Amino acid sequence: MPNTNSSFSNAMRIKFPIFVIILEVAIIILFGIFVKYDTGNSHPPLSGAFWLYPLFQDVHVMIFVGFGFLMTFLKKYGFSSIGINLLIATLGLQWATLLQGFWHMHSNEIHVGIQSMINADFSTAAVLISFGAVLGRTSPVQMLIVTILEITIFACNEHLVVSILKATDTGASMTIHTFGAYFGLAVAWATYRPGLKNGHENEGSVYHSDIFAMIGTLFLWVFWPSFNSAIAAPGEDQYRAIINTYFALAAGTLTAFATSILVEGRGKLDMVHIQNATLAGGVAVGSCADLNILPFGAMLIGSIAGIISVVGFKYLTPLFASNLKIQDTCGVHNLHGLPGILGGIASIIAAALQINSNLSAAMQAAALACSIGIALVGGVCTGLILRLPFLGELPDQNCYDDSVYWEVPFEDASQESSVGRP
Amino acid sequence: MPNTNSSFSNAMRIKFPIFVIILEVAIIILFGIFVKYDTGNSHPPLSGAFWLYPLFQDVHVMIFVGFGFLMTFLKKYGFSSIGINLLIATLGLQWATLLQGFWHMHSNEIHVGIQSMINADFSTAAVLISFGAVLGRTSPVQMLIVTILEITIFACNEHLVVSILKATDTGASMTIHTFGAYFGLAVAWATYRPGLKNGHENEGSVYHSDIFAMIGTLFLWVFWPSFNSAIAAPGEDQYRAIINTYFALAAGTLTAFATSILVEGRGKLDMVHIQNATLAGGVAVGSCADLNILPFGAMLIGSIAGIISVVGFKYLTPLFASNLKIQDTCGVHNLHGLPGILGGIASIIAAALQINSNLSAAMQAAALACSIGIALVGGVCTGLILRLPFLGELPDQNCYDDSVYWEVPFEDASQESSVGRP
Amino acid sequence: MPNTNSSFSNAMRIKFPIFVIILEVAIIILFGIFVKYDTGNSHPPLSGAFWLYPLFQDVHVMIFVGFGFLMTFLKKYGFSSIGINLLIATLGLQWATLLQGFWHMHSNEIHVGIQSMINADFSTAAVLISFGAVLGRTSPVQMLIVTILEITIFACNEHLVVSILKATDTGASMTIHTFGAYFGLAVAWATYRPGLKNGHENEGSVYHSDIFAMIGTLFLWVFWPSFNSAIAAPGEDQYRAIINTYFALAAGTLTAFATSILVEGRGKLDMVHIQNATLAGGVAVGSCADLNILPFGAMLIGSIAGIISVVGFKYLTPLFASNLKIQDTCGVHNLHGLPGILGGIASIIAAALQINSNLSAAMQAAALACSIGIALVGGVCTGLILRLPFLGELPDQNCYDDSVYWEVPFEDASQESSVGRP
Repeated sequence: MPNTNSSFSNAMRIKFPIFVIILEVAIIILFGIFVKYDTGNSHPPLSGAFWLYPLFQDVHVMIFVGFGFLMTFLKKYGFSSIGINLLIATLGLQWATLLQGFWHMHSNEIHVGIQSMINADFSTAAVLISFGAVLGRTSPVQMLIVTILEITIFACNEHLVVSILKATDTGASMTIHTFGAYFGLAVAWATYRPGLKNGHENEGSVYHSDIFAMIGTLFLWVFWPSFNSAIAAPGEDQYRAIINTYFALAAGTLTAFATSILVEGRGKLDMVHIQNATLAGGVAVGSCADLNILPFGAMLIGSIAGIISVVGFKYLTPLFASNLKIQDTCGVHNLHGLPGILGGIASIIAAALQINSNLSAAMQAAALACSIGIALVGGVCTGLILRLPFLGELPDQNCYDDSVYWEVPFEDASQESSVGRP
Repeated sequence: MPNTNSSFSNAMRIKFPIFVIILEVAIIILFGIFVKYDTGNSHPPLSGAFWLYPLFQDVHVMIFVGFGFLMTFLKKYGFSSIGINLLIATLGLQWATLLQGFWHMHSNEIHVGIQSMINADFSTAAVLISFGAVLGRTSPVQMLIVTILEITIFACNEHLVVSILKATDTGASMTIHTFGAYFGLAVAWATYRPGLKNGHENEGSVYHSDIFAMIGTLFLWVFWPSFNSAIAAPGEDQYRAIINTYFALAAGTLTAFATSILVEGRGKLDMVHIQNATLAGGVAVGSCADLNILPFGAMLIGSIAGIISVVGFKYLTPLFASNLKIQDTCGVHNLHGLPGILGGIASIIAAALQINSNLSAAMQAAALACSIGIALVGGVCTGLILRLPFLGELPDQNCYDDSVYWEVPFEDASQESSVGRP
Repeated sequence: MPNTNSSFSNAMRIKFPIFVIILEVAIIILFGIFVKYDTGNSHPPLSGAFWLYPLFQDVHVMIFVGFGFLMTFLKKYGFSSIGINLLIATLGLQWATLLQGFWHMHSNEIHVGIQSMINADFSTAAVLISFGAVLGRTSPVQMLIVTILEITIFACNEHLVVSILKATDTGASMTIHTFGAYFGLAVAWATYRPGLKNGHENEGSVYHSDIFAMIGTLFLWVFWPSFNSAIAAPGEDQYRAIINTYFALAAGTLTAFATSILVEGRGKLDMVHIQNATLAGGVAVGSCADLNILPFGAMLIGSIAGIISVVGFKYLTPLFASNLKIQDTCGVHNLHGLPGILGGIASIIAAALQINSNLSAAMQAAALACSIGIALVGGVCTGLILRLPFLGELPDQNCYDDSVYWEVPFEDASQESSVGRP
């Protein structure tokens, strides 16, 4: 058993279950007061929502299987990656149902249905992205707090971007990806661990953990067209969102492969790039997904995303860790941050080119700036709260190690003959 | 090659293939005589059935990927878990199509379509649950017999509950989960192995086998709303079944996490609980899934299910093994048995509260009692048949070991540095 | 780092990224000139195409997760199997959109939508099947060339079969499975490596790599009804295609289990058979999937496919390697070649029996012969091109080894205590 300090062990043993139970009781009470089924008087009508159900299921797989397995690449942190992912998402979707519902109450009632379920799942994606930045360095107790705070701030930012600025962001490049990434980076900055400046022996993969991670990559890849189209307006908009995402991902995957070879210099591919940068096209095309940008426009956006994502992994992540005191375990800046900004810029250009006459380049730019700004401020505040002593701090040497939180069947076998991830 | 007795080896080498081929030939002949496409005169009409196809596919993934991978947690029994799961399900769905069809013949014809495919898949779920109880201790030959007998008894019990008692059980808490669990426990009791009283060295997991099992857990978790709504009445009922299951699962997952920490006492989570008890909410909300119990009602049921499931794993399973002579490899009593009973009780309460005026509390109670009673009697009889000498008995020391049934690429590597599962 | 010759290393380091980037730029330009959204004037109308979206997603999972993971069985080639699968499929679907589009231009425009996406995914399946034959012995650069050439030849053969011969091949037994298998075998023959005549130490599985492969098998198995019905005529035809495939797979799985035991002689199952031959029923029923062959007819076809596939693995693959100088890594001849021919023959018989009055037995036979003939000629030509010196040849000793193309976290661990696959 790892030798953790008693304050930390105490937090996990007592505070974690008490906190979870209080939260669940409070949520059930709030649901009892406010939440009703969205049937009968629903907009869109019931039959319309049924059409959304397969798209909801695709998004659901992305949240629980996709994000969960994408983070299993660490050799000794697979249980936590999948388990805490599940914990965050299940808490997050309940909390988001309430928070998003408060913005759209009908006579003091929150109406839930397939659309609200899609939106709730979307909210949790932002938290899961942030989780990727601090993966292995935050405890489940801390992640519960991040979930509650980030979902709350996310709901406000989303309301600002969609209802006040009236910006377009169908695939949520800005409100989910950029927001989640910079929120996570800000938390990472505020909870910087100088003791891990030179890396950690567990911060690497083994052969089979990299293959587990590809389960996550592939399910995200395959279902991304559903993610980018699920909240698009039914009809041609939704149709275009599917098609654009399909081609943006394909183009971005090819450029990610090519760039991975180019930056390595030894003629080899890096699994980190293939696991992550192949998805960057889907992130970047998000904001414009339902616009009439034509397939070649989507492919252009995707191609650029694949390139900048790999370049980010190779050059920016090490720089962030050494110069900016931002440790980014999964490299979410490269998968969600940079491609998300690219998506926002693409939407500004699309608005400026009058591809859709309802759009304003200024409002798109404001949406991008808001998402980044609110994420950074919110993330720093959240990070400072995480450092409150009563939460118990995980010792540096126990980072990236499942055996702190789990009964692990063995201690050493997955650790043999492995080398660190660059 | 393991040293198994010749009667056992003989059963596998000769009786298994002959039995399979005879069964398949018989099934094809029966299909030739009775089975037609459910087109033209179908109820619901063809267009309605098409809407069900995505739900069918979700259920299909649960049966083959979900159940299959959920059982791969054993360190040396992954081939058998997935392989025999596939064998049971493919035999079971053909047999169930015939058996369920016989109860609904139209002019001596069995009409198959997407609805009958969903029902056939459902039937196999009961057998797969039972398989979990005896996992590692029964041979493929024995499981063929269990499949044929259990599907037959299942079809009778289902007919009794649905058509005669007219009880509601949309998500099949009683007819599939409770039935499958107690049938399996009864088989386990009737085939008790005193030689394994103190456990078996192979009855544990390794790090990566626990991650494989999470593939099963997550696909079951994600698609459970489809399971509970697939046979609900189209429209509001189906819509409610989806929403209720979504929230019941989320709530039950949180309580399972909290309870897992509380019962362990050392501040650690147990992967067994996360793999299984997080699904208990889906089981428990099944019987009431389509009723107007409101989301908070679903969450209450789910929350309780998460708690009792973990408590069952911690305290009941060891007790069953030591005092009741019931070995339950996967702990199906905790995932399907107890939450299934909870689901049945919830439906009795819902009927008593007149949530739906067509329901009778007495009939719901009768449905629950029937499902348990018929499962126990059927399971004991089936277990006694499995002990017939000509089937060949697997020696105790070869339990939980793929190499008895499979050409395994190596003998020892997955066994290193692992500890038994509690 | 493996000791590869400098010409090979040069091809990977420089030619691969340049080739990919040139291709992507060319494709984007062609898309810019020709490709538009298939909305407004689409046939079938938009609403009809939306119905296809869940089927498209199922096929998409098959291509990226199914084929990708099916090939991870090799102990040291998992990164390449999944990664190059992704590379081929993403290049292939873009290229196929153009090539298939050229056959169906409307006023010099290619209209893309969900139907064209399904067809593009289908085209890549043919290349992925061929990839299985030469898995581990061809480089990513070579596979890019195979992709471009095979998709081109595939589009011509498909046009010939469907539009000129007007043969039925809904599930593409002939145009995808038979074509892909024989194309791959011809490439394997033209790139024969005498140095690997006696096998290679890496050409085997380890315990967990075989379980990874089952992820591929099961997702292919589960979604195969969508594959065989996705391009069927809406309504009864599509309905029948779903039902027939469901039962053909189930029947073929049982016969594959039985035959696997019978051919091994020691009473053990072979994981290679379960991973592959259980899918043969889906391949074989493809050509007739939408015809009124009745469920028992589908089961008959599936049953025979399961048997011949296992027999092929046991007896033909070794014979091909030793006598015909055709090395077939994944045994695609047994999973796609033989069952594909069986599917073609079944369609000839169905046409002869006048199951559908629009069919001609002669045209079905011509379609089968064309698919095989064009595949063989195209494959040999492609193989000869692959041997051009400037592409760099992978040394024999580096075959089946990820570390040639990837930064691998360790070199030896997955290799311990494993034995070769027979």
